[in-house]
Amino acid sequence: MLEDKNQEKTSLSQLGEFGLIEHLTKHFEVTHSTTVKAVGDDAAVIDASEKQTVITTDLLVEGVHFDLSYMPLKHLGYKAVMVNLSDVYAMNAEAEQITVSLAVSNRFPLEALEELYAGIQLACATYKVDLIGGDTTSSTKGMLLSITAIGKAKKEELVYRDGAKATDLIVVSGDLGGAYLGLQVLEREKQVFQVNPTNQPDLDQYSYLIERQLKPEARKDIPKLLRDLEVQPTAMIDISDGLSSEIMHICKQSNTGCKIYEEKLPLDPQVIGTCEEFNIDSTMVALSGGEDYELLFTVSINDFDKIKGNPNLSVIGHITEAAAGMNLVTRANQEIALKAQGWNSFEE
Amino acid sequence: MLEDKNQEKTSLSQLGEFGLIEHLTKHFEVTHSTTVKAVGDDAAVIDASEKQTVITTDLLVEGVHFDLSYMPLKHLGYKAVMVNLSDVYAMNAEAEQITVSLAVSNRFPLEALEELYAGIQLACATYKVDLIGGDTTSSTKGMLLSITAIGKAKKEELVYRDGAKATDLIVVSGDLGGAYLGLQVLEREKQVFQVNPTNQPDLDQYSYLIERQLKPEARKDIPKLLRDLEVQPTAMIDISDGLSSEIMHICKQSNTGCKIYEEKLPLDPQVIGTCEEFNIDSTMVALSGGEDYELLFTVSINDFDKIKGNPNLSVIGHITEAAAGMNLVTRANQEIALKAQGWNSFEE
Repeated sequence: MLEDKNQEKTSLSQLGEFGLIEHLTKHFEVTHSTTVKAVGDDAAVIDASEKQTVITTDLLVEGVHFDLSYMPLKHLGYKAVMVNLSDVYAMNAEAEQITVSLAVSNRFPLEALEELYAGIQLACATYKVDLIGGDTTSSTKGMLLSITAIGKAKKEELVYRDGAKATDLIVVSGDLGGAYLGLQVLEREKQVFQVNPTNQPDLDQYSYLIERQLKPEARKDIPKLLRDLEVQPTAMIDISDGLSSEIMHICKQSNTGCKIYEEKLPLDPQVIGTCEEFNIDSTMVALSGGEDYELLFTVSINDFDKIKGNPNLSVIGHITEAAAGMNLVTRANQEIALKAQGWNSFEE
Repeated sequence: MLEDKNQEKTSLSQLGEFGLIEHLTKHFEVTHSTTVKAVGDDAAVIDASEKQTVITTDLLVEGVHFDLSYMPLKHLGYKAVMVNLSDVYAMNAEAEQITVSLAVSNRFPLEALEELYAGIQLACATYKVDLIGGDTTSSTKGMLLSITAIGKAKKEELVYRDGAKATDLIVVSGDLGGAYLGLQVLEREKQVFQVNPTNQPDLDQYSYLIERQLKPEARKDIPKLLRDLEVQPTAMIDISDGLSSEIMHICKQSNTGCKIYEEKLPLDPQVIGTCEEFNIDSTMVALSGGEDYELLFTVSINDFDKIKGNPNLSVIGHITEAAAGMNLVTRANQEIALKAQGWNSFEE
């Protein structure tokens, strides 16, 4: 439905590459004084700064990372930006600029790309980041988006993955597993639609889950909250591949172990209800479901009073010596070794 | 021949995404003191600086920008880096870091990606840039490379496209049209090979052209040369889409016209000889053949004495008032309007 079967649509070859970039980026405003030169030269220019620069990049491939049969293009654009900003916030930095590169088959009409860029623009406006460059080209099949995000932080505020220490508390923002379940719901509806295209699904009871999947928000608020609370995390990572995989990254790079408490995992009621309906274990979903884009971090135990009871944060366990291993403590008080069941895009 | 028909090769799914990144990047050394954190966290970190940061990104798609039937993967890796560094040098900046994102079908064995990264590593070592991050994922078809290059320059040294003024001289580094002709030779050999796979081509007489196509070098030396000569260009761009298209970018953004003299266009003897053999006009090749990655810039006419006779530089014309148009002055002293016949990847 997104391809160019309607002859009134504008084909990409009519515009050409330069015309296309100009057309798609002309409504983007530059909001940061540090953005000296955005789109339109050999390279973008960012002003000198006493802060350090953080850079992160992610590649999203149609048929691997997203399915346009249930992912509207505007949402895709928004989400692609979120995925990258999330990595900047996971450094405890502020995101200021992005570049967007796009490869699309020329069967996509211009109007489809306008939708995509409307989502990118909404994300830029909401999160106050400037689009400063990119590349637009054709692909032999489908759509591929490559986004790079650039941020700034004072050297002493940056948080890496390798600073966790035994007795540090493990904290997560928001709740877990929603995005994964949203995907399961959408996949099921796609199957139903293929059998019966006239079916009108009632997805109200899954609204939160679907929003978590289709319109995730990066946690820009958390670095700010931590500054306000005067808490400097010792390690931080964003949850893109599932809690289990992410805490294992922190432990390996910090050379520690951890204990995560099953009963402490933050779950939305829709996650619990839908897990029952799908007959899946909600703990498994919280540990291994990806794409939540929450922040996972460790703080000194001395900071407990500053964060306890904060509705945005859950303390879910603590860091241990490496020899103790990386474990989940179940509700039955059994210790089970964590497994990284994060997603591997190369699996057949 | 590059796909995984040999069962002794290592499949990408065995390694998984994290294992793959670690495996491919472990031999890369960090050489810049400004590279605070390279691969291995949510984002890379670059140190604070009194210089401005330039950022550029390019996407290369198999079947659109390169053909693996005659582009060895090591060369592809090298060239993909050159394409980006060239944009940094075209700002009169020094390149310091790159990120590399790769989408590949899992039919590529690990050994193929090692070749690709060997080329990237050679480029990094030769041009003294640090690999600081990226993303590696699967594609549904073929290979796609997205590279972002980061550089630094003092504010007053940066050169944009919009600073050319009437009477400025138009200067180009190196010679033109070689990469385009190299591609024509390789395409012809591919056709011959398809008809007669046992044919052993003798490509000696095209060696320079093929090298220009398969192993281009970005002109890192030119910004340095210009500093040594104490010449500050008024506008600069790199020649990726052909001289004609690039000078038109400078003229449009500077609101000027130009005169380019046909007899001044720098052509290698192999370009002239091969144009005769292929029965193509060498001026057309110099104007419209892309991928030379030479630098095109304008300088004040007062700098003429500093650059005349330099073997790396050719003065090919001058900037005029906008009303005079953008013209080629032929050997017969006729003026012909320049046309941007740069490449449009969206053409059918």
